Amino acid sequence: MINIEWRKDTLVLLDQTKLPTEITYVHCTDWRQVAEAIKMLRVRGAPAIGVAASYGLILAAMEAGRLEVPFSEQLTSLYEFSETLKETRPTAINLAWAVDRVISLVKEHVESMSSMSEVVELIRKEAIIIHEEDVSLNRRMAEAGATLFEGQKNIRILTHCNAGALATGGLGTALGVVRKLHENGQLERVYADETRPLLQGARLTAFELHEDGIPVTLETDNMAAYAMQHGLIDAVIVGADRITTKGDVANKIGTYGVAVLAKFHNIPFYVAAPYSTFDFTLENGTDIPIEMRDDYEVTSLHGVQTAPNGIDVLNPAFDVTPHELVTAIITEEGVLKPDYEESIDKLRQIVEAK
Amino acid sequence: MINIEWRKDTLVLLDQTKLPTEITYVHCTDWRQVAEAIKMLRVRGAPAIGVAASYGLILAAMEAGRLEVPFSEQLTSLYEFSETLKETRPTAINLAWAVDRVISLVKEHVESMSSMSEVVELIRKEAIIIHEEDVSLNRRMAEAGATLFEGQKNIRILTHCNAGALATGGLGTALGVVRKLHENGQLERVYADETRPLLQGARLTAFELHEDGIPVTLETDNMAAYAMQHGLIDAVIVGADRITTKGDVANKIGTYGVAVLAKFHNIPFYVAAPYSTFDFTLENGTDIPIEMRDDYEVTSLHGVQTAPNGIDVLNPAFDVTPHELVTAIITEEGVLKPDYEESIDKLRQIVEAK
Repeated sequence: MINIEWRKDTLVLLDQTKLPTEITYVHCTDWRQVAEAIKMLRVRGAPAIGVAASYGLILAAMEAGRLEVPFSEQLTSLYEFSETLKETRPTAINLAWAVDRVISLVKEHVESMSSMSEVVELIRKEAIIIHEEDVSLNRRMAEAGATLFEGQKNIRILTHCNAGALATGGLGTALGVVRKLHENGQLERVYADETRPLLQGARLTAFELHEDGIPVTLETDNMAAYAMQHGLIDAVIVGADRITTKGDVANKIGTYGVAVLAKFHNIPFYVAAPYSTFDFTLENGTDIPIEMRDDYEVTSLHGVQTAPNGIDVLNPAFDVTPHELVTAIITEEGVLKPDYEESIDKLRQIVEAK
Repeated sequence: MINIEWRKDTLVLLDQTKLPTEITYVHCTDWRQVAEAIKMLRVRGAPAIGVAASYGLILAAMEAGRLEVPFSEQLTSLYEFSETLKETRPTAINLAWAVDRVISLVKEHVESMSSMSEVVELIRKEAIIIHEEDVSLNRRMAEAGATLFEGQKNIRILTHCNAGALATGGLGTALGVVRKLHENGQLERVYADETRPLLQGARLTAFELHEDGIPVTLETDNMAAYAMQHGLIDAVIVGADRITTKGDVANKIGTYGVAVLAKFHNIPFYVAAPYSTFDFTLENGTDIPIEMRDDYEVTSLHGVQTAPNGIDVLNPAFDVTPHELVTAIITEEGVLKPDYEESIDKLRQIVEAK
């Protein structure tokens, strides 16, 4: 199932808020629709947001080009639009990473260009590269992740939220590894936390694995401890929205609790994330901005009220797992292990040297 | 809000499945309606189930008395009905405890009785005593629990599921302690886990505390770890469905995970439960039968589908927290601390001596 596609001046996005009962697409011809789709989680998952935002910048450049002002002012508008797009969601670093990458490229080449149509073309090419890269690095992450399970059979993986094909431009990060293990005949089953409040596990992970014929058992988040206690889980694999230079990991709310439970039960806790997820400007996870979302996400579900009116609500969209609880980080350049300050710095050097 | 009331040959139960949006009552004139209400969680919470079942036995005895057979055969029917009622839910011991208590009393006095109307009267009196006792021991538990917080102010309590007035005949077990702390001016706030799949925390705990003007913040189950990590929680208090002689505690699914998280964060984990919750025939928590419930509880909510069709589901209604994770058990006879084998045996001796 294609979730992000650039089709003749239009960004077509699978509306993930409607899954699993409806398969509908949003057709974005304005970058503001892309911003809305990101904000409303129609497209979600750190890598997918990065890819969608890259395409969104084509639309932003097209709009800037239609303004009846000089080229330099059109560029200023593009930069303003890009800032707004970048601020749509604060936690996932890939969004900022993708926008910055595209805008830096524009700034680098702007001297040699004389019209927005050239800028549009430059962004279009770069967005396609970012998308294609995502597909390829998902595959490389899957292969790297599989090395952690060499010689193992009948593996039962617990995952939280959706770090799958729906969250990326390709196979998925955590679920890319899962797909590789399945392909190798090593996977017995995935346990998918439903992931309240927005049920990405029930609606998206269970959906995409079931579609692909990969055995999956759905459980409410509070059953993860039961599953571990009963010996049903061999490893946890999750995605990430941002990773600091120390190896602290921001990911969907509930991930930290799963990591603590994994530690208590001596179960390895793996994070699968591409290079674009690392924030080299932050050392500590406590410095990662955590998006707080609306109360109604907790007090209702698909419009059905589940809690009394006027109740106070806690609704952080993410939490931070300290590096001490992370057994390994799976990247497209291989598996990182503690000491993370060292291994993450080495990753940076490898990628920068390319 | 009254949740269980015996009113002229009718057991009136607040239908807790309709809360918080509808306040409706079920009028039971047949013990099978009581069994159905227990099975469907219209009445739930270990102590409340015990009280409701006691009243249900009046209806069972009335029906047995209407059978046109000799008194001895009417009694046999009553015993059969009582067995069916007892098996409605397997995990909470209070249900079996209440039914056994009433039926033992009948068997003790049956020699001196000659008609079912006498038996009905005997059961009616005992059911009322069981209900009144529940009210009184909730109060005593609340007082005992408050001693754990002497000298503390601005206390933030996390609770899971609903061990409140709605789960008992009185103030509640865990929430009885919470109410006492509120009355003493020591309570800052309660964090209520919503408690998937059936949302007893969102629908019932948030509801009854909010009604009583006790500050409460609702969170999804997977936010408990976040709240603890951010220093928002001073203690956890939960109820129990069954406690073994070693101090292992069966309670609503998710409780075990909260206990592990509390341990990791050095937060005390308290269980509040009356004597009727202890199962003196079981030593290990692993021997407690765990009720597995229907898949649709996980794959839908209030009739709205939340997961793909045909998905596998894990749905244990309870889990078991090993005694090592329990800081103290609050009973109507005072606070029990480890070694639990010793302190629980002492409790048994005290109660049996009464």
